[in-house]
Amino acid sequence: MTLLIPTIAGTRAALGADREAGRTVGFVPTMGYLHEGHASLIRRARAECDAVLVSIFVNPLQFGANEDLAAYPRDLEADLALCKREGVDVVFHPDVEEMYGGRARFCIDVGEIGDRLCGASRPGHFNGVATVVAKLWNIAGPCRSYFGEKDLQQLVVLRRLAASFDVPVEVIGCRIVREPDGLAMSSRNVYLSAEERTAALVLKRALDQAAASGERAGARLAAMMRETISSEPLARLDYAVCVDTETLEDAGHVTDRAALAVAAWFGKARLIDNMTVTA
Amino acid sequence: MTLLIPTIAGTRAALGADREAGRTVGFVPTMGYLHEGHASLIRRARAECDAVLVSIFVNPLQFGANEDLAAYPRDLEADLALCKREGVDVVFHPDVEEMYGGRARFCIDVGEIGDRLCGASRPGHFNGVATVVAKLWNIAGPCRSYFGEKDLQQLVVLRRLAASFDVPVEVIGCRIVREPDGLAMSSRNVYLSAEERTAALVLKRALDQAAASGERAGARLAAMMRETISSEPLARLDYAVCVDTETLEDAGHVTDRAALAVAAWFGKARLIDNMTVTA
Repeated sequence: MTLLIPTIAGTRAALGADREAGRTVGFVPTMGYLHEGHASLIRRARAECDAVLVSIFVNPLQFGANEDLAAYPRDLEADLALCKREGVDVVFHPDVEEMYGGRARFCIDVGEIGDRLCGASRPGHFNGVATVVAKLWNIAGPCRSYFGEKDLQQLVVLRRLAASFDVPVEVIGCRIVREPDGLAMSSRNVYLSAEERTAALVLKRALDQAAASGERAGARLAAMMRETISSEPLARLDYAVCVDTETLEDAGHVTDRAALAVAAWFGKARLIDNMTVTA
Repeated sequence: MTLLIPTIAGTRAALGADREAGRTVGFVPTMGYLHEGHASLIRRARAECDAVLVSIFVNPLQFGANEDLAAYPRDLEADLALCKREGVDVVFHPDVEEMYGGRARFCIDVGEIGDRLCGASRPGHFNGVATVVAKLWNIAGPCRSYFGEKDLQQLVVLRRLAASFDVPVEVIGCRIVREPDGLAMSSRNVYLSAEERTAALVLKRALDQAAASGERAGARLAAMMRETISSEPLARLDYAVCVDTETLEDAGHVTDRAALAVAAWFGKARLIDNMTVTA
């Protein structure tokens, strides 16, 4: 049975029996509009933990003033059907008042690492992500928490968040789930026209070509990807970089912890993708 | 038996059996050099909770560059004796490496409320307090956490911290413990010369006189206290204010949640005191 719970207290109470029985909790925080990428996180949590919690909350703190908060796709009914299908125990679905109502509040400031990559065009985004996830982890209690590797910068920031504050959570990154033609799954893919949908394949193509090139100098890999993406008329390049996956600083050369990461606009959809490369 | 534990993992493990048995944990975070004020917090935790955790950690993050971090008084042996006497179960005593070692870290930014009162002369202090307590709460796990009301601004900031991030903690403020002559107990009282020790009584005197005056306008209460403290030659006034105890903003008039708060230097010791007043 999947419980839908709108309150913090109710969510804690619903997990209380599991806690007391020493059962492990797997937690998948989401903004809803669930797709196969989310399903893969839920399935892994289901396989590895006794109880599974999914949160569905479109977090206003992580949207900029000119971003798509109001238009962000929502479909609670379909989300619940997916959660039931995948054996989720508790769906925490608060409103904004439940999460941020009341008095003045503090936020997490992730500093410089939040200004890189996606942060450069989304100022404050990662402060908002870190703040809501810090809250969600406290609501969920000790848990294993699952995130997709597509949101590489988010994963790096949240690993650092957990370490910075000794949060009793194990942060688990899960492989990118792709459409059959290679496009990384994203709730924002719904914004794409048919032409943009085709054009968006250039992201994966840029990553593949760079990774297969044999090139190991970060700057040259980045240049190759920029050239590939810029050759697609419907793509407006945001960034294409080779970075260290702990610091997100430019990697001079490919190391054991380097990744290629790209972002571009296709119409009103800003899409991202990435791929680890090995030395 | 009182366990002395230097590691985060060891502290969690030591409390694990209590958690599994559903026992409540009372937590008293301190910087050591324990006095009767701390003892009163520990006794209340002992009376109200099944297990009692005390942390002793002189937190470098909450000291400014020109403050007394290196000179801050320490006496672990006496602290442990007090903890044993008061029936503390676990003393968590980490070094700086255990708390802040390793990679880059995020901090809590408490914003404007951290710039008021003590924050005006101690920039960054409350960010450091909030950051270490956020960590300590995550290490302690769900608990009741006890703080002295002498550190009024700290208590206000930490209540807001707990609310901001839904920390599973009950923050409990405890009455100020005073020497027989009225001086609020503080680890920093050890800095006082005999003359300064006598002069420091002016803080409590200023609070008492203002509270007893019948005056209910915040600005006039503040002026009365400033005048009293300024009349003491060995006191160098920092602030004397009447504030709202939720926002720490100046209270125009005494309300149900107003407090008088004072701070002054006596030699190298900066001392604070406060008193609630009722409408």
